Amino acid sequence: MSTPAPAPRVRLDLDARREQLMRIGLELFSTNSYDAVSIDEIAARAGISKGLLYHYFPSKREFYVAGVRAAAAQLREVVEPDPELSPPERLRVSLEAYVDYVEHHAEGYIALMRGGIGSDAEVREIVEESRAVIIDRAIADLPLKTEPTTLLRLAMEGWVGYVEATSLSWLERRTVPRERLRELLFNTFLVVVGAAVQADPSLELDLAALGG
Amino acid sequence: MSTPAPAPRVRLDLDARREQLMRIGLELFSTNSYDAVSIDEIAARAGISKGLLYHYFPSKREFYVAGVRAAAAQLREVVEPDPELSPPERLRVSLEAYVDYVEHHAEGYIALMRGGIGSDAEVREIVEESRAVIIDRAIADLPLKTEPTTLLRLAMEGWVGYVEATSLSWLERRTVPRERLRELLFNTFLVVVGAAVQADPSLELDLAALGG
Repeated sequence: MSTPAPAPRVRLDLDARREQLMRIGLELFSTNSYDAVSIDEIAARAGISKGLLYHYFPSKREFYVAGVRAAAAQLREVVEPDPELSPPERLRVSLEAYVDYVEHHAEGYIALMRGGIGSDAEVREIVEESRAVIIDRAIADLPLKTEPTTLLRLAMEGWVGYVEATSLSWLERRTVPRERLRELLFNTFLVVVGAAVQADPSLELDLAALGG
Repeated sequence: MSTPAPAPRVRLDLDARREQLMRIGLELFSTNSYDAVSIDEIAARAGISKGLLYHYFPSKREFYVAGVRAAAAQLREVVEPDPELSPPERLRVSLEAYVDYVEHHAEGYIALMRGGIGSDAEVREIVEESRAVIIDRAIADLPLKTEPTTLLRLAMEGWVGYVEATSLSWLERRTVPRERLRELLFNTFLVVVGAAVQADPSLELDLAALGG
């Protein structure tokens, strides 16, 4: 009798059930790859039949997409800068929250960023939208004396590429302590913004306010 | 009679045929997405039967993988720095060659980097290996006064993420002129290296030699 007993079956209303399933999906897909999660496991954890699970999500793919969407919303929330802090502190705290989040959801993050369920258009759209929100926020939070430009946005897209590439490498190989990664990200953000300003004569920025 | 006549069938020896197919694959897959290329088209271009094509490459996937491998080798070759140039010139010329290459192979580059044939392990390995070669070279070319460190490597991995993210965005949206992108990449490389040196007390670098 080594098989664990399934969760007891409990009647929940539609919204509560959906929310419960989303919580389970978030947990499973953010700590496992897509292929490693089975429909049976999801249903067993929720204490419902596979049939009822399919009633909420017609396929494993749709359940995964909903999970990625929930994870993206959660990530955006944890890196939301605290308006009470100074600009450099906001940046530092957000970067720390990002590193902590991806560390606690390493398996799912790696699987998603390394291909996940591949070239799924909907998943890609969620990832792209999340990046756009983070970039919008980063730009809005810069002490700009001028309007933001397309070149600044391009540099911020590159910055997100930098953060994702270093985070992935760090999660997979852990070649440096967490504190070093955080410091590298903080320093690099400042200089990446500086390089964009340098390459675009129509940008003016109070870099001291950011770095101080 | 609007269908173009197929290429005449010519007997080629094994190596020449393989080379011809690779050339065709490189052209097709670097300017089209995976799904847009058909086995029929490849065979017609080469002037051979589908049967003979399958003799060289058992599946479209294997043909694609060989094409990605050839493209990766070509990209590494065109960005290989000219040892006769000064360090800043080497960097500038390599970055220009990179931007030119991805521009001329935009469709294939976008398809590959946005997922391509998805989470194919072999494709991912080729991409990863190419990145590693470029990072090795970039590190070897830095005017370091000390041994390179794991933090420097992490920063260079981030740099490649920056270049890929900006290149993809630029190819898809062309929000700035090519010259602006090149200048942004050049400036950013220098400061990214600077930020790594700043975050790692055991690194010492002759930054003036690089930026001058």
